Amino acid sequence: MVAPLTPGGTARTRLRRLPEKGVADRATVEAVLDAGMVGHLAVVEGDQPYVLPVAYARDGDRVLVHGSTGSRLFRAVASGAPTCLTVTLLDGWVLARSAFESSMHYRSIVVLGCASVVDDEAKPAALEVLTDHLMPGRWADLRPPTAKELAATLVLALPLDECSAKVSDGWPDDPDDDLDEPVWAGTVPLAQVAGAPLPAPDLRGDPPVPPYVRTWTR
Amino acid sequence: MVAPLTPGGTARTRLRRLPEKGVADRATVEAVLDAGMVGHLAVVEGDQPYVLPVAYARDGDRVLVHGSTGSRLFRAVASGAPTCLTVTLLDGWVLARSAFESSMHYRSIVVLGCASVVDDEAKPAALEVLTDHLMPGRWADLRPPTAKELAATLVLALPLDECSAKVSDGWPDDPDDDLDEPVWAGTVPLAQVAGAPLPAPDLRGDPPVPPYVRTWTR
Repeated sequence: MVAPLTPGGTARTRLRRLPEKGVADRATVEAVLDAGMVGHLAVVEGDQPYVLPVAYARDGDRVLVHGSTGSRLFRAVASGAPTCLTVTLLDGWVLARSAFESSMHYRSIVVLGCASVVDDEAKPAALEVLTDHLMPGRWADLRPPTAKELAATLVLALPLDECSAKVSDGWPDDPDDDLDEPVWAGTVPLAQVAGAPLPAPDLRGDPPVPPYVRTWTR
Repeated sequence: MVAPLTPGGTARTRLRRLPEKGVADRATVEAVLDAGMVGHLAVVEGDQPYVLPVAYARDGDRVLVHGSTGSRLFRAVASGAPTCLTVTLLDGWVLARSAFESSMHYRSIVVLGCASVVDDEAKPAALEVLTDHLMPGRWADLRPPTAKELAATLVLALPLDECSAKVSDGWPDDPDDDLDEPVWAGTVPLAQVAGAPLPAPDLRGDPPVPPYVRTWTR
């Protein structure tokens, strides 16, 4: 199945490898992006590519990332050079009867395009989207950003015009010849689980852990 | 702290942003790489960078990745063009009193360099290193790869000559002015946890779940 995802889908986002794992619907792209927190963003300097881990949030039909105005590489992405943001969620092991067929369960989104800078007027709203994706419920509890903080923060928007998705969630796919191999085969799920909140040593007064934080831990 | 990690460290791997999170020792680089399974590998075609999720394993002073000989982008990395492999482990949330100081706990390694192709003779040993990193104990239970499987698999080695590491594991670092904000602050840990093994529907006989798999689940 060749799966350009959107009207903007192109030959670049067609899945040549394991195209059967391609996912064509926009809802899957959005669900995977909404389930993740950290993506990997490409920037090229000369002939050297760099891959930067970035916290991100989906905002409708675009993805927001933020960084420091002092980051050379982040400024390079801001200049509008073609970039790529890849989000990968690792969901488990696939234990086949051979090393060749062994693999992982994962969900992965690749977004190609050029990022644009979110302007000063729109920046607070974009930071709210980012904060409430990464830390749902937190924004309302925090004081608003100061002018100085806003000036030090670069927010970029990457449109979801050209993207592809892969989802691997099946059983081992061993050829018939291997089915009598005397070895256990199957899958082992893997999940990210939050632990108990730990109060900062300099916490003043005795504020309770906010209820929204408790929802992250389940 | 400016932290080139190795004799090969260069201006390109110095940490300009949050250099206080830079980690200079090789042991940390190796420990983070050994704790991860999936990295993100850069490849550039024309002016378009791509970021590919790849399973990897550290093998002494190099990192091994493998892919299909049929992957155009993977073959481009094999051609020896400069690449970047970034491994990021997400360890938790840092809830500061402001959005600006809020962040994540993470461990991240960036490796720059050119990959070389592991030759046919060395390929089985490299696949053993990969398999036993991703699925510790599994290789000895599996039949050896066939000639056809080996021919379809491209294994690349990226030297750990030029790399940088960042570790964020501290408390929120709020300015004094914010310490009286009436909001809880602290950290929330995040961990990857394995679930119960699920047997393949086409499993023949009644082989037990191997003991090594049980060790992954703890």
